[in-house]
Amino acid sequence: MLKFKENRSFYADAYDEGLVERAYRIVKNEKESGDIGYYTLPSVSRALIGQLQAYEKENAFLENIETVVVIGIGGSSLGAKAVDSMLKHKKKRRRKLLFFENFDPLTVIETMGQCHKEHSLFICISKSGGTIETISTFKTILNHFAIGSEREDSKRLMVITDKGSPLSRFAQKYNIKEFHLPMNVVGRFSVLSAVGIIPLYLAGYDVHALLDGAEAYKTIFFEGKSKEILQKACFMFKNRDRYTMNLLFVYANALEDFAKWYVQLWAESLGKIDAKGEKAGLTPIGLTGSADQHSFLQLILEGPENKTVTFLTVEDFENDLSIPPMTLPYIEETDFMNGRGFGELINAQCDATMESIANNNIPTDKITLPKLNEKYCGALIIYFEILTSLVGAMSEVNTYDQPGVELGKMILKEKFKD
Amino acid sequence: MLKFKENRSFYADAYDEGLVERAYRIVKNEKESGDIGYYTLPSVSRALIGQLQAYEKENAFLENIETVVVIGIGGSSLGAKAVDSMLKHKKKRRRKLLFFENFDPLTVIETMGQCHKEHSLFICISKSGGTIETISTFKTILNHFAIGSEREDSKRLMVITDKGSPLSRFAQKYNIKEFHLPMNVVGRFSVLSAVGIIPLYLAGYDVHALLDGAEAYKTIFFEGKSKEILQKACFMFKNRDRYTMNLLFVYANALEDFAKWYVQLWAESLGKIDAKGEKAGLTPIGLTGSADQHSFLQLILEGPENKTVTFLTVEDFENDLSIPPMTLPYIEETDFMNGRGFGELINAQCDATMESIANNNIPTDKITLPKLNEKYCGALIIYFEILTSLVGAMSEVNTYDQPGVELGKMILKEKFKD
Repeated sequence: MLKFKENRSFYADAYDEGLVERAYRIVKNEKESGDIGYYTLPSVSRALIGQLQAYEKENAFLENIETVVVIGIGGSSLGAKAVDSMLKHKKKRRRKLLFFENFDPLTVIETMGQCHKEHSLFICISKSGGTIETISTFKTILNHFAIGSEREDSKRLMVITDKGSPLSRFAQKYNIKEFHLPMNVVGRFSVLSAVGIIPLYLAGYDVHALLDGAEAYKTIFFEGKSKEILQKACFMFKNRDRYTMNLLFVYANALEDFAKWYVQLWAESLGKIDAKGEKAGLTPIGLTGSADQHSFLQLILEGPENKTVTFLTVEDFENDLSIPPMTLPYIEETDFMNGRGFGELINAQCDATMESIANNNIPTDKITLPKLNEKYCGALIIYFEILTSLVGAMSEVNTYDQPGVELGKMILKEKFKD
Repeated sequence: MLKFKENRSFYADAYDEGLVERAYRIVKNEKESGDIGYYTLPSVSRALIGQLQAYEKENAFLENIETVVVIGIGGSSLGAKAVDSMLKHKKKRRRKLLFFENFDPLTVIETMGQCHKEHSLFICISKSGGTIETISTFKTILNHFAIGSEREDSKRLMVITDKGSPLSRFAQKYNIKEFHLPMNVVGRFSVLSAVGIIPLYLAGYDVHALLDGAEAYKTIFFEGKSKEILQKACFMFKNRDRYTMNLLFVYANALEDFAKWYVQLWAESLGKIDAKGEKAGLTPIGLTGSADQHSFLQLILEGPENKTVTFLTVEDFENDLSIPPMTLPYIEETDFMNGRGFGELINAQCDATMESIANNNIPTDKITLPKLNEKYCGALIIYFEILTSLVGAMSEVNTYDQPGVELGKMILKEKFKD
């Protein structure tokens, strides 16, 4: 399972039993009442696999599909992209995943240039079914590739949305294959629903193992066997005015998109007016080691003590690469690296950095993935989701809405309706 | 030139003439004394162009070079990568730029897979000449591609480093082409020195225009014609305890790597123990619109008022793409976008977001690039460099050292010397 470590027991010492028990009860109630749906996804989403297998059997054209194109923004793309980035180096995927997730013309043009109609399945993902960017891009794709309503064309389309949404009704009108996400699951908690599972399955990932990993950590948590997460949530909340930022420092490029997923999860769930009417929320920041040791580390070490740092590492890269035992005249100073693996090195850098940060009185913890695979990835996802729910419960905010984003959408509509 | 805008004159109102004059004098003195070298790069670096033209004339093999491979980390890669990402969509580059800039085994293996010895020029960039990651990667490349010391091989190598560094002495021993950066230019301020200019020239960018743009903004600043930058620096410094973070919200994927460059520049320059012995520094964060409106915006709007937001936009994408005038049954709600350009839309989103943020009492400003080209890119670079120098002068820190990074290196060496 995931391995947890903290330096100098910053988190353990801040433990507040009353606070933790209250938050735990809230989270447990969210799960058991069925108000919040993400807790059940590790089991509920298994049904999707059978449906996907049937869909594949009925649609021979899928054999020619090389690219699964996801049109979605925010919670509709960040999760699947995070998993894909984490695992795509590991094996030949059955199909490539391609994401339309930003809206500027250069990016849309460039991404369209990577698609070929005959070899692509286009999945339009929008929970509400009316996300401006997503629908506009979807239309542009229909137009650009001359995808019409006849079956030969519309079979290349798929839709993932809420039951009864405008997008769902559109799909039904044209017999476009559709999947729904449970109504009680919001976008940023939806990676283990159809939103993430379907593209990941079609790309060839072992989504069974992904759900297994999530289920396994969820069980550990609800059986009260993961004290680390409670300590951490408690520390983060109690010290929210002092440590206003949490940095997720990932030591592998493959984890960079996971950090982006975390940033959305944390920022959009916890940045809220709380029950007392106050503006609350910690700021999440993603960093990538070792590169960002040459960028952001200076600020962590000598800047204001207003940050906590969570390191995320991979214990065994499986495909490690050794630095050759070679001496370059005059540059012998770095020869102490000779014969070592890059994986060994980056992990040693992570440990050295964690040590020097903790010695500077900055709270740190580390999460280690034993390997990069579906199982640990699933566990990592639900770990951060539960952590977010716990801090949300302590903060007395509505973890699952996003009124600020809705405001931005309204302003935009008004701008153009002039 | 760049266009500046601020909402609700947060910055203008905080103007403190004494503070600004003192900082301006310090910056002017850095430039005129020659202590700090980056100010002169827009003129000094022009000499590199003639040297590069001569180098090209003497080396016919360059005609077969399709990829310029940069091996460098932090300040040795972020700048050239930022410019490349900003401009590469615009025209066919003469050569592709490829960056080895992180250290995990999967990334090194994947990037090596994209290189072909016969068609690559490998540039090893390290100011000190002994950066552990860079030298280790360089050795791995020499080994992997069996690049030996005979001329046929070593001509494919180039080195950019300080005069007299270990890497420079190595290059001289094997007659490897080398360029130096001025001793008084540190890594994160070096993009307009050989560090950035050489890869960018070889890739086919108009580095003359890049330097022209930087020179032009520098002149405007030192002629006292850009009050915005002084107001902004002053506000940032005076409100450093209240607004502890500055978000750079870029509205185009092409600007994402520029935000990374800014993060290093700001964090490593200003995160310091100040003259009073206190830990100082604002936290820079890069965001990308419109995607991050679906991620981070909620926190900006309803979270604690501890952030300032700088928007960075492109006025004219030149290659805009229109949303087709198409109505999808049931999804008519987004039809108000029909016929509009994606560029128009993303800019309207930026304005709408800026407005709603400013209405929530959060200081914002906006920098607009009239177009994405070398000239505006050069101006943007020196704008942020001067802004950093001004805030550094006000903060009474040494803007140009990085003791924390050196500490990390030492700890790593000790770990491995066991």
